[in-house]
Amino acid sequence: MQSPFNIRLRTEVERKQSQLCLGLDLDPARSSRIHNTTLDSLRQASLDIVEETWDQVWGYKLNFAFFERFGSHGYAWLEQLAKAINQRALVIGDAKRGDIGNSARHYAQAIFQHLNLDAATVNPYMGQDSLEPFIADPAKGAFVLCLTSNPGAEDFQRYGDAQPLHLEIAHWAQSLNDADNLGLVVGATQTEDLAFIRRAAPDLPFLVPGIGAQGGSLEAAVTSSTAEAPSIINVSRGILYAGEGSLEDILSAIQAYNQQINTIIQNHGL
Amino acid sequence: MQSPFNIRLRTEVERKQSQLCLGLDLDPARSSRIHNTTLDSLRQASLDIVEETWDQVWGYKLNFAFFERFGSHGYAWLEQLAKAINQRALVIGDAKRGDIGNSARHYAQAIFQHLNLDAATVNPYMGQDSLEPFIADPAKGAFVLCLTSNPGAEDFQRYGDAQPLHLEIAHWAQSLNDADNLGLVVGATQTEDLAFIRRAAPDLPFLVPGIGAQGGSLEAAVTSSTAEAPSIINVSRGILYAGEGSLEDILSAIQAYNQQINTIIQNHGL
Repeated sequence: MQSPFNIRLRTEVERKQSQLCLGLDLDPARSSRIHNTTLDSLRQASLDIVEETWDQVWGYKLNFAFFERFGSHGYAWLEQLAKAINQRALVIGDAKRGDIGNSARHYAQAIFQHLNLDAATVNPYMGQDSLEPFIADPAKGAFVLCLTSNPGAEDFQRYGDAQPLHLEIAHWAQSLNDADNLGLVVGATQTEDLAFIRRAAPDLPFLVPGIGAQGGSLEAAVTSSTAEAPSIINVSRGILYAGEGSLEDILSAIQAYNQQINTIIQNHGL
Repeated sequence: MQSPFNIRLRTEVERKQSQLCLGLDLDPARSSRIHNTTLDSLRQASLDIVEETWDQVWGYKLNFAFFERFGSHGYAWLEQLAKAINQRALVIGDAKRGDIGNSARHYAQAIFQHLNLDAATVNPYMGQDSLEPFIADPAKGAFVLCLTSNPGAEDFQRYGDAQPLHLEIAHWAQSLNDADNLGLVVGATQTEDLAFIRRAAPDLPFLVPGIGAQGGSLEAAVTSSTAEAPSIINVSRGILYAGEGSLEDILSAIQAYNQQINTIIQNHGL
């Protein structure tokens, strides 16, 4: 039997000596030497990137939007890519799903059984029955959206007078972590909030997007980490489109991020 | 050029004399005479149901979870079904998507361009930039999750001291309705709240799930309707699994719902 997801997460941090997650979001609107704009060339680029990088990163984040835009062929690409990674790195299905329990079960089936991914991102707006199917198997993890990296995070995620909504959600997720397989999504752009959220959810690993293209603070992101609950730092565009976008450029960017992250961890004795 | 979605919605209510939306959520775990549990038989059942019912319903709601559980083959089924309906009825992509603007654009592309559906359901948690791609084309509509029909609706949707979160979201959606293509999802199980939400968002049509299997009040759902902003009543399991689940049973259930809904509308002079 597999360990709970949060133990698998920590084991992989140790094994790879990396807290870096590569977001494989290949956007046809971005052109570069290796990323052409057809589905076939994007698929080949993603497979090449995995072969070159799997032993250098903690894992991969697959944002379903970038696959679904191509419909069933994009979904088949997602299936092929998930299979190609083949347990050499952990994979987060960044699907941000949330639906009533009956429907959420089907979404969890798609991500955890059909695609056999290791974790999913989940939207908390519809509450506990929408989350439950994603945490029913301890070996599979769910990262609940808490305070996101985009401008719209300010619209509702700080709602409430006594306590902002996202902290309420952080406490809620912490209280549901009996199987040790829950985490939170906290944007690196939310520099001043990371410490408050860490206090509300001491046991939950963070998935931290917003570094690179979105301009979040790597220092703040990494120092939200603890030995028990490491922060996984996601970078997508900042790595995929580094330099000329060649495999060498991508690998260099990964190594530079790993080094920066590990230096911050050492300097802070985390 | 097509009219704004909310005008298309009202025109279709007039044309079909129906405010009933059929949720085509065929669950392999439910067995009946016509719904076998393989993908092929579910696909055939869905196509048969459309041929039998398209002129009797306002439109269809396709919950993506029920297709994605089968991966790329399920997504291909979704494509085939969307194409088969072929503008004979409006189609809501019940995907409940919500992501940062850059990713939300890809989701909107999938639903509105690739699948050519007429509207989508959208999760508001990530705020305005996550909604914008879904309302950029006036002819396409977005139903924002407001107060849902499931038990988890109580967890965060009433959050806040001054005003519950879902009413804040209702006001927000109303304020963004410049192109006349926004609506709200309000569960029929939320009987006492429907009137408050209607007051907060007088111009927005409601998509009301929760009738039938979830036990919501049809009377409360229908009386949230106004001539300007009709409520579209969604029924899924209550029609698909009516009687023995034959096409005749499904058609009878549709006709019975249409009659009940239209009677309530007449009785209340709506």
